Amino acid sequence: MGRVTVRRPVRRISAAGERRRPDSLAAEEPLELRVGGKALAVTMRTPGHDVELAHGFLLSEGVLGSREDVAVARYCDGVDDQGRNTYNVLDIALAEGVAPPDTGVERNFYTTSSCGVCGKAALDAVKLRSRFSPAASEFAVKTDVLSQLPDRLREQQKVFSSTGGLHAAGLFASDGQLVVVREDVGRHNAVDKVLGWALQAGRIPAPDLGLLVSGRASFELVQKAAMAGIGLLAAVSAPSSLAVELAEENGMTLIGFLRGDSMNLYTGDQRLLT
Amino acid sequence: MGRVTVRRPVRRISAAGERRRPDSLAAEEPLELRVGGKALAVTMRTPGHDVELAHGFLLSEGVLGSREDVAVARYCDGVDDQGRNTYNVLDIALAEGVAPPDTGVERNFYTTSSCGVCGKAALDAVKLRSRFSPAASEFAVKTDVLSQLPDRLREQQKVFSSTGGLHAAGLFASDGQLVVVREDVGRHNAVDKVLGWALQAGRIPAPDLGLLVSGRASFELVQKAAMAGIGLLAAVSAPSSLAVELAEENGMTLIGFLRGDSMNLYTGDQRLLT
Repeated sequence: MGRVTVRRPVRRISAAGERRRPDSLAAEEPLELRVGGKALAVTMRTPGHDVELAHGFLLSEGVLGSREDVAVARYCDGVDDQGRNTYNVLDIALAEGVAPPDTGVERNFYTTSSCGVCGKAALDAVKLRSRFSPAASEFAVKTDVLSQLPDRLREQQKVFSSTGGLHAAGLFASDGQLVVVREDVGRHNAVDKVLGWALQAGRIPAPDLGLLVSGRASFELVQKAAMAGIGLLAAVSAPSSLAVELAEENGMTLIGFLRGDSMNLYTGDQRLLT
Repeated sequence: MGRVTVRRPVRRISAAGERRRPDSLAAEEPLELRVGGKALAVTMRTPGHDVELAHGFLLSEGVLGSREDVAVARYCDGVDDQGRNTYNVLDIALAEGVAPPDTGVERNFYTTSSCGVCGKAALDAVKLRSRFSPAASEFAVKTDVLSQLPDRLREQQKVFSSTGGLHAAGLFASDGQLVVVREDVGRHNAVDKVLGWALQAGRIPAPDLGLLVSGRASFELVQKAAMAGIGLLAAVSAPSSLAVELAEENGMTLIGFLRGDSMNLYTGDQRLLT
């Protein structure tokens, strides 16, 4: 699996005694994303599927709407002090007419230093408007189909089983088929990778798919689903208050605590068939 | 607990049937941090201990070294459309002579668009140099003391027990005393809050304390500990490859999978007394 895992010696200490053994760690390395040669962000990620990650990140940020918006994605050819390409810098050339993001700035920051309007401004600053309508998604899934998904996601988590250290995300059809699964040390990255896969496959917007995540549902994950036109997000763990609010506001379906044969439905009843 | 949890109706669906009941969600709201009136970052956090969060964030970013570096921390007095202060914008005035961070830029971005030196550059861009020496920490803890800490952290996680949705971080002494515990929807925020508490208490650098986190150990969490001069980081879950590398490079101790009576020691043997 290349750089997806890293072997290291570890001292395993327990009541039964102590032993030294090799341990597999989830690889974490920085990926610098550049757009048109300009640095945009550095994300700590598990190497692999980096081009998908870049596509999904730029979709989530509202820069891309289709695969045609990218002209070229390539690793920079610089080398480290041992003369090796680290494959940790990826440059995206946008197609003609696609507006580049403001580089170096985390979300288009309103530059006023006035405190007068700061009530809702902080939230507005992090909210993005999707070019697609997740509310229009007619996706629907049966509860028994949904209940089987976490186990099937776990089965496909090859790296998790050896390291215990990775988040996973998957896109699934209404019959329960997992069309893509990706793992990463970062929850956001795992989601960006599956969304980037869908963008590259010409499947964005994806009103015909649901998004499953192995952990919690936060505001940002709901927002990523919305930016991809996805109507349903299911999480194995808890959602946050703002995740539920944003899902409701966007006409999406949010499910949490999807474990065993039970689940919590927070909003968007019409996409869950009981 | 005010805005730390939010009550919402939920449909609980299981093989045993379905019922509608109120559910407690971990509150997630954006906090905009300003330094000297200029927007620096927006973080999605659980409200509460925001001043600590701001102190810890700025310590982690290398802006602050002691509590004297902050002149004033106050919420902006703007209101939302219902005339209420949301307490979601916090402005920090630095003391005279303290250099402000570059605002709007995520980590001092090298602005070259050349690809020639991008091998190690991406990693160097996210690495910060600590003004303290975590390697100099003479902190040491016994394995049986360490083994008791996750349960004691969990006992103090008031919000987790009602929502299932929060990360926790704690600082502890070598005798196992948890001197501070904080929870947050974000792992980084929970750590920033305990480090900010320590900074405000005049306890930074903290070579006499260990840092415990309820989840995984990533590069960024090791870096935060290093920036606070902390020598030992213990995590309930897995570390990443880069977390171990950075801990080793900084002469720190990193422990993972701290569960039951067992643990994995990755680097820094001298601080673990068996």
